[in-house]
Amino acid sequence: MRYELYYWPHIQGRGEFIRLALEEGAGEYVDVGRLPESEGGGRPAVARMLENAAAGRTPFAPPILKAGKLLLSQTANILHYLGPRLKLAPKDEAGRLWAHGLQLTLTDLVVEAHDTHHPIAKSLYYEDQKPEALRRAADFRALRLPKFLGYFERVLAANPGGDRHLIGKSLTYVDLSLFQVLCGLGYAFPRTMDTMLRMHPRLAALQRGVEKRPRIAAYLASSRRIPFNERGIFRHYPELDGA
Amino acid sequence: MRYELYYWPHIQGRGEFIRLALEEGAGEYVDVGRLPESEGGGRPAVARMLENAAAGRTPFAPPILKAGKLLLSQTANILHYLGPRLKLAPKDEAGRLWAHGLQLTLTDLVVEAHDTHHPIAKSLYYEDQKPEALRRAADFRALRLPKFLGYFERVLAANPGGDRHLIGKSLTYVDLSLFQVLCGLGYAFPRTMDTMLRMHPRLAALQRGVEKRPRIAAYLASSRRIPFNERGIFRHYPELDGA
Repeated sequence: MRYELYYWPHIQGRGEFIRLALEEGAGEYVDVGRLPESEGGGRPAVARMLENAAAGRTPFAPPILKAGKLLLSQTANILHYLGPRLKLAPKDEAGRLWAHGLQLTLTDLVVEAHDTHHPIAKSLYYEDQKPEALRRAADFRALRLPKFLGYFERVLAANPGGDRHLIGKSLTYVDLSLFQVLCGLGYAFPRTMDTMLRMHPRLAALQRGVEKRPRIAAYLASSRRIPFNERGIFRHYPELDGA
Repeated sequence: MRYELYYWPHIQGRGEFIRLALEEGAGEYVDVGRLPESEGGGRPAVARMLENAAAGRTPFAPPILKAGKLLLSQTANILHYLGPRLKLAPKDEAGRLWAHGLQLTLTDLVVEAHDTHHPIAKSLYYEDQKPEALRRAADFRALRLPKFLGYFERVLAANPGGDRHLIGKSLTYVDLSLFQVLCGLGYAFPRTMDTMLRMHPRLAALQRGVEKRPRIAAYLASSRRIPFNERGIFRHYPELDGA
């Protein structure tokens, strides 16, 4: 199966969770948004997918995955579908439902990380909501981030398969997504995360472990990995990282 | 199968999406949080589920569904599991993935609706973040709400099975969730929703249609339906409903 990923070409964003799974799982895929417009790619190709209302099943937003005749949207939904096919999901139903629940909890964390710099409106610039962002980021650093990270640290510790993975004895797409969230948080909040990772050694070990996997290391070193920037989910505004 | 739902007893909250599916689908269930504490229910029973870290698979937050030996968390995950079992999901894989994607888009809308009254911190009272709430609610009413509602209106219009349902020719759990979101938005933003529903006749018809279904009507009239209040997701603060 040759998958087609539709996502905005200039940010990691939510598309990155799909890219990491496809890269580690050696899925054959085309990142359509990153193809030149002359080859049918770019932002226009992504935008066309969202205007295709005539087909009856138009997604609300990217990322969108085309898998043969199937069209999937919502990051966690796409990973729930791809996981077993890329051998990155537990084999039993209970394990897959647990994995999906964890992924949706990461989804919640991602929204809250995003809203630290956009607490009022996606339609406004960061500079137009900076006082509110300072307040929201302070709460995020003090309460929400420790709550989420403490939770995932406990899930690692309690995994009967060992604390190197969230579920079972081998890597799943949820480990990859947690890795990506830790990378993003480290970019956005380097000071805070330096402390947090010292307090949560299993999370730190998971991040290092994923980063060293041959296929992930090759991907991160390639031009396919878009650098973090201030247009994505995770943005580095030093004032939001605390004093 | 006798399902056990674990959710906070004093609000509809995210648990309500599960309750509506179980009610319409005639699922046998116990709403554990609403049992008296003397019968092993109440808030302590829900809290215990979140402290059960020893079991290795502790959910992050309610709602939690116990289905035999399975323990499920995250609303959309629970509905994805329950849907086929309650005959409230499409029969084909493509339809189920489409349903789940739509449910996750409703999940996104629910977060944004909640954050109109809590844009800064869940840990603070509304009164402590009222200026920010006024700003966020204005953007929600002007941009986000029309974007989401316009989307679901188009999905209804484009459904090859007819515009009475989001998917196919019969009711799914996603229709029930959309109904619940429309009820909640109507409670929180009555003036805004009065206008919005006139602009989106298919949404208004879906809400009326679901409300009249015998099992739903009986549920809504029962004491099992917790009234909307100012502790849940959808809260009525008139100043957030515009001038």
